[in-house]
Amino acid sequence: MGSAYEALNTRLRDVHNLGMAGAVLDWDQQCYMPPGGVAARADQKATLSKLSHELFISDETGRLLAQAEADGGETEDDQAILRVVRRDYDKATRLPTALVEEKTRVTSLAQEEWAAARQADDYGRFAPWLERILDLCRREAEALGYADRLYDALLDLYEPGMTCAQIDPIFGELRSELIPFSQALFARADCVDGSCLTRDYEIDVQNAYTVDLLKNCGYDFRRGRQDKAVHPFCTHFSKNDVRITTRFDKNYLPSSVFASMHEMGHAFYEMGLADHLEGTPASGGASLGLHESQSRLWENMVGRSIEFWKKRYTGLQSTFPASLGDISLEGFYKAINRVAPTLIRVEADEVTYTLHIILRYEMEIELLEGKLSVADAPEAWNARMQELMGVTPPNHREGILQDVHWSIGILGYFPTYSLGSVLSAQIYDAALREIPDLPQRIEDGDCASLLNWLVENVHRHGRKYLPGEVIERATGSQLQTAPYLRYLKSKFGAIYGV
Amino acid sequence: MGSAYEALNTRLRDVHNLGMAGAVLDWDQQCYMPPGGVAARADQKATLSKLSHELFISDETGRLLAQAEADGGETEDDQAILRVVRRDYDKATRLPTALVEEKTRVTSLAQEEWAAARQADDYGRFAPWLERILDLCRREAEALGYADRLYDALLDLYEPGMTCAQIDPIFGELRSELIPFSQALFARADCVDGSCLTRDYEIDVQNAYTVDLLKNCGYDFRRGRQDKAVHPFCTHFSKNDVRITTRFDKNYLPSSVFASMHEMGHAFYEMGLADHLEGTPASGGASLGLHESQSRLWENMVGRSIEFWKKRYTGLQSTFPASLGDISLEGFYKAINRVAPTLIRVEADEVTYTLHIILRYEMEIELLEGKLSVADAPEAWNARMQELMGVTPPNHREGILQDVHWSIGILGYFPTYSLGSVLSAQIYDAALREIPDLPQRIEDGDCASLLNWLVENVHRHGRKYLPGEVIERATGSQLQTAPYLRYLKSKFGAIYGV
Repeated sequence: MGSAYEALNTRLRDVHNLGMAGAVLDWDQQCYMPPGGVAARADQKATLSKLSHELFISDETGRLLAQAEADGGETEDDQAILRVVRRDYDKATRLPTALVEEKTRVTSLAQEEWAAARQADDYGRFAPWLERILDLCRREAEALGYADRLYDALLDLYEPGMTCAQIDPIFGELRSELIPFSQALFARADCVDGSCLTRDYEIDVQNAYTVDLLKNCGYDFRRGRQDKAVHPFCTHFSKNDVRITTRFDKNYLPSSVFASMHEMGHAFYEMGLADHLEGTPASGGASLGLHESQSRLWENMVGRSIEFWKKRYTGLQSTFPASLGDISLEGFYKAINRVAPTLIRVEADEVTYTLHIILRYEMEIELLEGKLSVADAPEAWNARMQELMGVTPPNHREGILQDVHWSIGILGYFPTYSLGSVLSAQIYDAALREIPDLPQRIEDGDCASLLNWLVENVHRHGRKYLPGEVIERATGSQLQTAPYLRYLKSKFGAIYGV
Repeated sequence: MGSAYEALNTRLRDVHNLGMAGAVLDWDQQCYMPPGGVAARADQKATLSKLSHELFISDETGRLLAQAEADGGETEDDQAILRVVRRDYDKATRLPTALVEEKTRVTSLAQEEWAAARQADDYGRFAPWLERILDLCRREAEALGYADRLYDALLDLYEPGMTCAQIDPIFGELRSELIPFSQALFARADCVDGSCLTRDYEIDVQNAYTVDLLKNCGYDFRRGRQDKAVHPFCTHFSKNDVRITTRFDKNYLPSSVFASMHEMGHAFYEMGLADHLEGTPASGGASLGLHESQSRLWENMVGRSIEFWKKRYTGLQSTFPASLGDISLEGFYKAINRVAPTLIRVEADEVTYTLHIILRYEMEIELLEGKLSVADAPEAWNARMQELMGVTPPNHREGILQDVHWSIGILGYFPTYSLGSVLSAQIYDAALREIPDLPQRIEDGDCASLLNWLVENVHRHGRKYLPGEVIERATGSQLQTAPYLRYLKSKFGAIYGV
């Protein structure tokens, strides 16, 4: 390999390390930083981002990249890394610096305004900011470029290669299947009693229990740790330092248990990277959707399955005898899978979650393309909630003002949550084809079989392939809804007798 | 103020922020990082140091600095900041990059070899590395420049403006006073029984107690926190995020209590910086000696005083009733001030600590100037220990191999520990002149009077003045031994009846 490629990698290693340092500063801010540190921390993070961005978009990076491309990558990995860098470099350099700076400035103010507007349930206060953000997103999409729809340019930032043309039929099918299905479940609400989960669960005991659960699932505490955060997240500073956070609610056990398992799924992805890709531009997950597929797979397909709890439930019962002593395995399993109409996305169950996402996806496109005005948006939100879920938000706080995403200027992000859910089932099915006794293994305490399969087929590749390529390699086909719909209908049909 | 000064400050703000980010990475590594993270963390820290160094020593920084100096600083602060930057810039640019890189490489290997040599009690293994390090330090000193002695150039790195010519008479006097004084105390060892301190002290209870103690002394947990670390330290990421760490030994109460108070003293210095110097090159402490004066003042002059415990001791007793219930205030006060011959510096009491430092100071100069050979050094160490303390180390592990400093190439650092002790008494005396009832206030739980005086006279200036200027402003005179010797003789004379 010529020296241009080596010089490029040395340069990109600095960019990578600045990003990792920024991630440590973020982790600290969310887990341990005293309140007084906030102003200086913002300044420190701004310096790291600025230096990293300048280093990456510099002409020298472009020159080395072009030279390395001309030389041709020596190995398949080298070639893959050059493709990744080219994609990132083009995206980063297509955006004019002035636009990036304006967006940073506007969204930082808009986020404050959104928080105040949500607090006061005052959509009118947020509306002019949403208008400005939509304008910025349109200019961003134009600068990035797209073949078909404006929205595709934004989608591509989070889910490389994904387009509306691919999502529309998928979400269309989910919409038409899940509306009647969820209504049928709602009608049989009496079948499931979730009240045992809101009893008393000592927080220290929850913490110790989730740590044991993570260890039991194969999360390696020599290469990670679990801390407490208001909004649980996973972060990594290398494949050997991948940390998760969780939250604790004394009167709602699933808060910690399933946040821990969800973030563990994200962590497994980062921990499973091939050693030789560590620290390179091909490290990290292939897309947000693929990342979410791993978290949902462990949270839902494993963590909320009957197999997982069959032999583990007595341990949980003896950890919380006063709250679960009188609850059978069956009762617990049903409780953690209770389905109900929800106004708030982050509180939604597996079935209705996707309906929340479809609402946002449809509205984002209409707003971006000017088919829906900012003024009419709240009404459109409420009407769509009625159509999708059969409920109407009593206020905007529980309606259009509930999510932070638009205020920070990230449109095109929401769909990745549901793409992740759809993918989780498709990937689990592929694993099941190769390991037919997977449920039994999970029941017997063997999570390693599934994890090893995921490492081999998904994790180790990092960003080396485009998400579509990873999915094809792992499952033998492109993104499909069938496994996901089959999973939801079979599991929840059985629980609710539908 | 001309734009060169502003451009310079913008540039130096990035340098500052890279340093602060590096400090967060260090803090995390010592407090929370899982073992797997170590390799990537070294790489991340190397990137931050490299980029910060490159940015600082660049020709552009030099050009802006020269232009800003030519324009002249508008305010007194501007002028002070330009002086600080000029000092730092000249120091940083005088060292050839090749020398810096060689030292980094050699000391990183030397530290490993030192650790192995210490473990095996094998001085011969470390000797060739010490030889190389002395050579590097000589070249470093030559590159940095000095008026009188080679050692002055190194001293100046940690204690700007300090020279052997100033230290020699100070350490000479301490030597001739403290050898007979400590021997007189050793002879009356029976006067003090320290055994109550090695009873059982639950670690969780120690933690809660030290947190309360810190709060009681005025350490603001909204602007800091206390964590556990193997080697206690204080670090800051801004004046509003100054963190300390402490250690806990279930069978030695002073470990945590006095480490917490020591680090609190360091923290107060950083927290007391004037707001307008925050984030500028004039932030941080004026020197290591001045920093140490603050930690020793709070640890020893306050924390090990009878006044401090008079009304607080019953609280400590009721926190550890089984271990301290039968110990009087007087007994406790004597126990925390027990003096004894020690082989290990970090375990030494207030009186003998300085003898350990004098030994190192004298040997460092002789080694650097070639008056003592590396081969003869262990014997010289042992002979000097016998002369200073009346004991001879039974092995090199407890002798010449005990400290990490030489292996990491920092000569000229040790003296600052004792300069700090000397200064702590001089500064406390100055405060006492202005607040004559200070001991009574401390007894009554008012630490704020002392702290406010220190903020006003020492802390707020940061690095704006040279250490000698700060001392002169705060105490009305240059560094003096009299207050320190008076303090030691009066306090320990009373305890031991000497």
